[in-house]
Amino acid sequence: MTGPWRATVLTLYPEMFPGPLGVSLSGDALARAVWALEMRNIRDHGEGRHKRVDDTPAGGGAGMVLRADILAAALDAAAPADDPRPRLLMSPRGAPLTQARVRALAAGPGVVLLCGRFEGVDQRVIDARGLEEVSIGDYVLSGGEIPAMVLIDACVRLLPGVMGKEESGAEESFEGGLLEYPHYTRPREWEGRAIPEVLLSGNHAAIARWRRAEAERLTRERRPDLLPARKPREE
Amino acid sequence: MTGPWRATVLTLYPEMFPGPLGVSLSGDALARAVWALEMRNIRDHGEGRHKRVDDTPAGGGAGMVLRADILAAALDAAAPADDPRPRLLMSPRGAPLTQARVRALAAGPGVVLLCGRFEGVDQRVIDARGLEEVSIGDYVLSGGEIPAMVLIDACVRLLPGVMGKEESGAEESFEGGLLEYPHYTRPREWEGRAIPEVLLSGNHAAIARWRRAEAERLTRERRPDLLPARKPREE
Repeated sequence: MTGPWRATVLTLYPEMFPGPLGVSLSGDALARAVWALEMRNIRDHGEGRHKRVDDTPAGGGAGMVLRADILAAALDAAAPADDPRPRLLMSPRGAPLTQARVRALAAGPGVVLLCGRFEGVDQRVIDARGLEEVSIGDYVLSGGEIPAMVLIDACVRLLPGVMGKEESGAEESFEGGLLEYPHYTRPREWEGRAIPEVLLSGNHAAIARWRRAEAERLTRERRPDLLPARKPREE
Repeated sequence: MTGPWRATVLTLYPEMFPGPLGVSLSGDALARAVWALEMRNIRDHGEGRHKRVDDTPAGGGAGMVLRADILAAALDAAAPADDPRPRLLMSPRGAPLTQARVRALAAGPGVVLLCGRFEGVDQRVIDARGLEEVSIGDYVLSGGEIPAMVLIDACVRLLPGVMGKEESGAEESFEGGLLEYPHYTRPREWEGRAIPEVLLSGNHAAIARWRRAEAERLTRERRPDLLPARKPREE
């Protein structure tokens, strides 16, 4: 692969970027050119004096729909047909984003992200340009910009040279398919609450067992959906 | 309720805010004081000359853990015990954020959001201050700041006077527990692709039926987990 991992964002609000991505871990990596960020204003491809990008929904109803022809022009200008990067549409209708998908995207050349606004996006540009719809969760936001930041941040932290030892821990436990075990640090006692004895024992095997058991307990209590389906127990 | 909906964010990177929340729908509402945003720097409560906020994990391992005593001091200064707002910790271990939770939070006085960084947060401050852990999805980010923006954006758009007719549509369909049906707008034909006939028919009952059927089809294909469990069909 040549060049850095590259994110191109198509949005009606390019001034939202880099925003939080310009600070801390992703901001440092951006400054070091580990990754590159390019914003494209969809409105540059709008129609007429007012640069219109949307119109009323066919069939009626509230809201406005972003036009297929405008979005296709913006996409084609930002990423020609031979650009190997996947084209994603941030949308609550999409496949839920997972850490596995994030890993795959981070291992590739980058992403082209289309941020919707208003009611939605004309279905024909999704079909014609093979957009992959991605959802960051089952809630409704005012647009795709913050979801694009979520996706980019998740990818960038996995790029080689981005995470130091300091930040590297969180992943392993979550990626094991379990929620993280509880963490503790100094002071040893605080407001009458002590760090669990085992963590101070120096017995590494016992500590590993305790952490594993806690991760399993938390996952069972909070997110049984993450556990592999178990065979029903025989009576 | 007196005063606007109020979000207080505790973070090591206050300069990330308002960021994208200062633009567009949420930015306009912020400027009109429909809601208020207050950033608190956790580091102001750090210890010693270097204002340290973290320490190595008890029991060993990579990463650093944010200290319970420091975070408690920051929380207590930002929101005294009689502050009625829920205290949330953005964390991949938390309960997945849902539109129902967003609606409940938007209907209340606001939120106090603690953004984690590094490996994690000392469990004792979660227990002692009754923090509600909230996850925006099953992926790992570099910190809780972008998740806090997700949560705030989701809430703010529901506050009275924020959404115009233009933006109001998206919700209804998603909130019905189904994914949104496909949208279309002008031009009537584009790259050989036509708007489905029924949407141009003027037959409102037929349009409503088509949209419902499409929403059900998409939900079945992409997110069967959202559908209510069905009774097994008899042979």
